[in-house]
Amino acid sequence: MEEANKKQTSTMSEAQKFDAAITDLMAEMTSSLYQNPETRDAGAWFNEMLNHALIHGKNNRGLTVVLTYKMLNDQVTAEDLKLARILGWCVELLQYYFLVVDDIMDFSETRRGRVCWHKKENVGMIAVNDSFYAESCIYTILKKYFREKPYYAHILELFHETTMQSAIGQNLDTTTALSDGTADFSKFTMDRYSAIVKWKTAYYSFYFPVALALHMAGINDPPRHDNAKRILLQMGHFFQVQDDFIDCYGDPEVTGKIGTDIADNKCSWLIVQALKLADSQQLKLLKEVYGHHDAEKTRQVEDIYRDLDLKKVYEEYENSSYEELCHTIAKCDNLPTDIFYEFAKKIYKRKM
Amino acid sequence: MEEANKKQTSTMSEAQKFDAAITDLMAEMTSSLYQNPETRDAGAWFNEMLNHALIHGKNNRGLTVVLTYKMLNDQVTAEDLKLARILGWCVELLQYYFLVVDDIMDFSETRRGRVCWHKKENVGMIAVNDSFYAESCIYTILKKYFREKPYYAHILELFHETTMQSAIGQNLDTTTALSDGTADFSKFTMDRYSAIVKWKTAYYSFYFPVALALHMAGINDPPRHDNAKRILLQMGHFFQVQDDFIDCYGDPEVTGKIGTDIADNKCSWLIVQALKLADSQQLKLLKEVYGHHDAEKTRQVEDIYRDLDLKKVYEEYENSSYEELCHTIAKCDNLPTDIFYEFAKKIYKRKM
Repeated sequence: MEEANKKQTSTMSEAQKFDAAITDLMAEMTSSLYQNPETRDAGAWFNEMLNHALIHGKNNRGLTVVLTYKMLNDQVTAEDLKLARILGWCVELLQYYFLVVDDIMDFSETRRGRVCWHKKENVGMIAVNDSFYAESCIYTILKKYFREKPYYAHILELFHETTMQSAIGQNLDTTTALSDGTADFSKFTMDRYSAIVKWKTAYYSFYFPVALALHMAGINDPPRHDNAKRILLQMGHFFQVQDDFIDCYGDPEVTGKIGTDIADNKCSWLIVQALKLADSQQLKLLKEVYGHHDAEKTRQVEDIYRDLDLKKVYEEYENSSYEELCHTIAKCDNLPTDIFYEFAKKIYKRKM
Repeated sequence: MEEANKKQTSTMSEAQKFDAAITDLMAEMTSSLYQNPETRDAGAWFNEMLNHALIHGKNNRGLTVVLTYKMLNDQVTAEDLKLARILGWCVELLQYYFLVVDDIMDFSETRRGRVCWHKKENVGMIAVNDSFYAESCIYTILKKYFREKPYYAHILELFHETTMQSAIGQNLDTTTALSDGTADFSKFTMDRYSAIVKWKTAYYSFYFPVALALHMAGINDPPRHDNAKRILLQMGHFFQVQDDFIDCYGDPEVTGKIGTDIADNKCSWLIVQALKLADSQQLKLLKEVYGHHDAEKTRQVEDIYRDLDLKKVYEEYENSSYEELCHTIAKCDNLPTDIFYEFAKKIYKRKM
């Protein structure tokens, strides 16, 4: 118990230090624009944009870089910790790059408890270009702080690869959810679901931050990266299933948002399970009511989920998936496995 | 005359070779997606997207890389020429990345004589993510073909810098054009105009392709790059003035498009000139009718332009600007100046 408390305190304190690290970075991201009269107005705009949304997230991905790096090193210097935090913020910038567009594509109104940036007055589609700027900042920052590091090329390429993976996943996600009014469930298979999750979420949210920490710690050989990838993609899959479950069953008071997967015609874990378990009558109804922005139709889908007891199906999956994950972690013999157990502990049983 | 013909033939032939080089690249950009059942559908989508728009441009920027590189080298190998063409296509990919979003932000319907990608059925905002994919392809291609080259880091950083410059310019352009219904001309100054042009267009269309060729030819010292930048930004400024003139005075039969700068409330060269020359009555009317999607109001602006004889103002500017440019080029003593004269010849007196 004391051990757990100590760990929590140290984690909180790192979270605070991580938060603090954005202040200098934020100024750096627009200072050269402010210094030049030609670009001053653009600097003010981008500064407002970055302040609006970048700093109000949970920073889980960014923090993962720092916490993993600490676990990989017994004696971290203050300078290296500073670099790990900067790298973590670059992960958050990449996440932001995708979230802006995600929100536009999904017609979202709020994000992180605040109105979406593109929904602010005078912003609209300008937000797309703003996300380009946020992405550009990543490479300015990496150049400034990492150019002389032996792992510079590795992390640059990892940012590029991860961007591409996420774009592929985003495409699979949105095109699978395309609908002409009647639900076409032919694409809603477990294989497609797994592909969307892996490419859209698991690579960038799970493998990516850990891989960056591995590179910083001088670990760049394929066998160790492959092991990390195997474990983290499996964890990412569970995380998304959980996200889908929370979208429908979560308490809006706790999560701060109302789920829209059913209305958005999303290939969610719940609908894939429902399609496996539904009888012909339920299937017929699902086809009629799934994927409409209509509260009554959404309720009908939720009723079928309840009749099929998807809550229980999920709970069984949660338990077996945790066991399987621990099994995969235990087989890993070339990396300190505590980095994965720590990560897993945070995710299982989360409520938001 | 014979010399000119010979030159033209060789240019045409390079244009054809450049065109041909995209075939292999196009396949490479999606082949790994096709090979994996998980991502096959995304591969088919991106393939359609790239085929829709990437290959129907004039390729001026991409060709500039190849033609400049040739002029810098007496003895180019076939392998280096191939690389220059690939680099040229990466420039076209970056251009495409920005055009997709430009079209979305400007509510455009057509581009390059075809319906805009985002206006196609089922595409819409998915086009934003598609542009992310197009950008990602740049870095996969650069890694594959240039990773071992001594100039790899230079060109990577140039792509990153240029992306940021264009995002800054795009922001200045759109935010200056923001309107709440009544034209606010306080921002429509020549300084602002010059800033928009430099950051949005001149860097990426003029300096960028030439700078890439310089790097390929082993030229990376600041003095020579600074000279190239000085000349090319000046040329880029003229090019945009010309573009603004053509938007209003061009023949739609020749240009293939109908101008929208007036309706879009753009800080165009013409309106900046008009604001300098207009009397108080003309100014009052301009404030009422500029920046509305209304054919009658647009015609009223055009009438004022005619009354102010902006055509003549433009023609005088065109001549003096050409003279000034030649003067700047003549002062350059550390680069072969024919690369700039060739470029200038193509641009002055163009009709589309």
